[in-house]
Amino acid sequence: MKEIQIGIVGAGTVGGGVIKILSQRIDKIKSDLGLPIRLARIVDKDSVRLSSLPVGGAVCSADAQDILRDDAIQIVIELIGGTTIAKELTLSALGRKKHVITANKALLAEHGPQIFETAAHNGVAVYFEAAVGGGMPIIKTIREGLVGNEIFSVTTIINGTCNYILSKMCAEGLAFANALKDAQKKGYAEADPAFDVGGVDTGHKVAILASLVSGGYVPFHSICIEGITSIGKEDILFARELGYTIKLLGIIKKNAPGSELDVRVHPAMLHDSHILASVSNAYNAVLIEGDAVGRILLYGKGAGEMPTASAVVSDIVDVARNILGSTPVRIPMQHYSASRSVPIKPADSVTSRYYLHFTVLDRPGVLASITGYLGQEGISLASVMQKEGFPERGVPIVILTHESTEKNLRAALANIEKMDYIKHRTQVLRIED
Amino acid sequence: MKEIQIGIVGAGTVGGGVIKILSQRIDKIKSDLGLPIRLARIVDKDSVRLSSLPVGGAVCSADAQDILRDDAIQIVIELIGGTTIAKELTLSALGRKKHVITANKALLAEHGPQIFETAAHNGVAVYFEAAVGGGMPIIKTIREGLVGNEIFSVTTIINGTCNYILSKMCAEGLAFANALKDAQKKGYAEADPAFDVGGVDTGHKVAILASLVSGGYVPFHSICIEGITSIGKEDILFARELGYTIKLLGIIKKNAPGSELDVRVHPAMLHDSHILASVSNAYNAVLIEGDAVGRILLYGKGAGEMPTASAVVSDIVDVARNILGSTPVRIPMQHYSASRSVPIKPADSVTSRYYLHFTVLDRPGVLASITGYLGQEGISLASVMQKEGFPERGVPIVILTHESTEKNLRAALANIEKMDYIKHRTQVLRIED
Repeated sequence: MKEIQIGIVGAGTVGGGVIKILSQRIDKIKSDLGLPIRLARIVDKDSVRLSSLPVGGAVCSADAQDILRDDAIQIVIELIGGTTIAKELTLSALGRKKHVITANKALLAEHGPQIFETAAHNGVAVYFEAAVGGGMPIIKTIREGLVGNEIFSVTTIINGTCNYILSKMCAEGLAFANALKDAQKKGYAEADPAFDVGGVDTGHKVAILASLVSGGYVPFHSICIEGITSIGKEDILFARELGYTIKLLGIIKKNAPGSELDVRVHPAMLHDSHILASVSNAYNAVLIEGDAVGRILLYGKGAGEMPTASAVVSDIVDVARNILGSTPVRIPMQHYSASRSVPIKPADSVTSRYYLHFTVLDRPGVLASITGYLGQEGISLASVMQKEGFPERGVPIVILTHESTEKNLRAALANIEKMDYIKHRTQVLRIED
Repeated sequence: MKEIQIGIVGAGTVGGGVIKILSQRIDKIKSDLGLPIRLARIVDKDSVRLSSLPVGGAVCSADAQDILRDDAIQIVIELIGGTTIAKELTLSALGRKKHVITANKALLAEHGPQIFETAAHNGVAVYFEAAVGGGMPIIKTIREGLVGNEIFSVTTIINGTCNYILSKMCAEGLAFANALKDAQKKGYAEADPAFDVGGVDTGHKVAILASLVSGGYVPFHSICIEGITSIGKEDILFARELGYTIKLLGIIKKNAPGSELDVRVHPAMLHDSHILASVSNAYNAVLIEGDAVGRILLYGKGAGEMPTASAVVSDIVDVARNILGSTPVRIPMQHYSASRSVPIKPADSVTSRYYLHFTVLDRPGVLASITGYLGQEGISLASVMQKEGFPERGVPIVILTHESTEKNLRAALANIEKMDYIKHRTQVLRIED
């Protein structure tokens, strides 16, 4: 049987993990699964890094062209990240009829159509289990395990950095900045955390999942994204008092068939009894609702060297099996095309219950004014909590509303925020059921 | 492209669900996935049942031979259950080089080697996602998603009937018999619940999972199985007081490579902070620990018409893809052979912490006697709780021990149970971390 040769570009965290797993398991994959794979080439600019890895017989070099030009290599594993060199490399590899395995969520979320169209054109496949949810087989579950389902919704905690920070704020009463520092110290947050805490990373993953479940293409830039940087420690405390937990969620909801897809990324209040409320620290979870399967949940480490490498290796095995069969493209991706963009529900028309945290001057009539403006927009209240405050910082008023459209809520807030009794920007969080 | 024809034997609960899903989704499977499948034949003895299902153009009959003899049928879906007719049918179908999809855990757990050997001999595959965990893609996750991992352990709540009964006992303080009646009324327990409450159903599923993760064959009859019938409502209460929940667990633990596999099914105490402690009612969950992926959890409905049918449909799509490729047996099962039985750790040598619930006469020296016998076997105590009792029913003494072997514990209990102060059989539950 002809050997299936593999080339890895990028021997950083995830690449290193893949090399380690293969060094331990490649014999088992050959003998037990009957897949004659071989790690033939590894490319990384950092030769010191390469020298510390169990590269076995793989030829190591610093130039990705070495892999692209090697006609014997059928599978290219792109683990360099970013959307510039990685994009070029991926398109070149596909153009040379090599299968590509990638952990690059930004690349797929932002350039998915071009990549999947190039793959289809060349009769090869792009596998990307590692791009979403690390070691949780979420892509496989949606594309294969739940293929008999109409998927109604996906609700997910999919960024370990944010979840760690929010868990820390909740457990220890820390402010955002301090929790972030702790996360950086422990290696859960990058030196520049903007991508994570701003919600962009979650957005990339949600764009990919939304494209999978909608049967069309959900452009990353069409998704409303809010991060967690404005969450105050008071919000965490008030949420707890009310029996809620604040999590950064990625949300995908299909409404009636043919209607607009509701896709968004934002911090949300989850009741403590919600199954996602107990997903803490660096753990991730994906809750899927399908017409046949009901609700199922996957939970695990969504990032990190070895969990992500585990996902890459499962893709290697899948692609190798496809190559051995005559189904190089086992799972069609023709829907992931710019010509099949899915219409996204405008943020304005999304309905939700809301948590509103006003900081106001301590004087008579304020609560009447706020509730009056909310009432004007037809927003009714589920609960009101006024706390003792400090003259210099203002008094907090916390209101949970019943269901309202974003549009009506924003109209009421626009009026309220004009009032001189408002001391700080009002915190608005959606409540998810 | 040649049509791939499917025959279903058994149009009961799960079969009916599969027929319903296919009637809705077969066009999508054809167009989006490019799989030209057709439900060609359905066999069931009950023609009334058949007439109420959306069978479309399928030929319905009462004789399974109609499917076996039809050379055009490449996939047989066995949904009749049991280990007699189902076994014969499965072996005949495989002998005629038809792929088999089954939801029959008893069949695979008790006759797996013969079935997988027959399949291999004939160059066809047996798919069985629906046999374990209903709609949760647990088989796919272990065989494909986690293929890059050495799996250390699987801990699972995998019988909805038992979990519903225990949840009900816990939430409402019901005795076992009353919770069982409620489960029967709600359709969560069969009229004859012995298979479920006795742990046999869990044992079948655990045998299959153990065979998958061990890389050998774990005979069902080698597994120690205890059911939940002896759990008293006092045990549930005492557990709660101590911060624990009682669940029926299936446990698979790999120790050092090459050593015996620890496989068992029994009720166990889980600390309330354990991720499986919050899996309630008819929900199931599987917690897997792998060397690369760490801990991952799947959670969902492990039984019922539509969730189980969802799993069957995902198998149909997989097998159809395999047929279209030249990899009819995409995932080898050669380890599932009688010649590759995995040695199982004898129950005696398993170590655990224990919950012991003695019911004793209210007289001096009893606690000293009990703790003395435990001490003789080197069993040290983590906590002791003596409750006020009723003269006629005896006084409860609850002890949590530190780690001990089953052998030492049984030796101590044998001595204690001989004493005339013991009023009832002592309740023994393992505590799992």
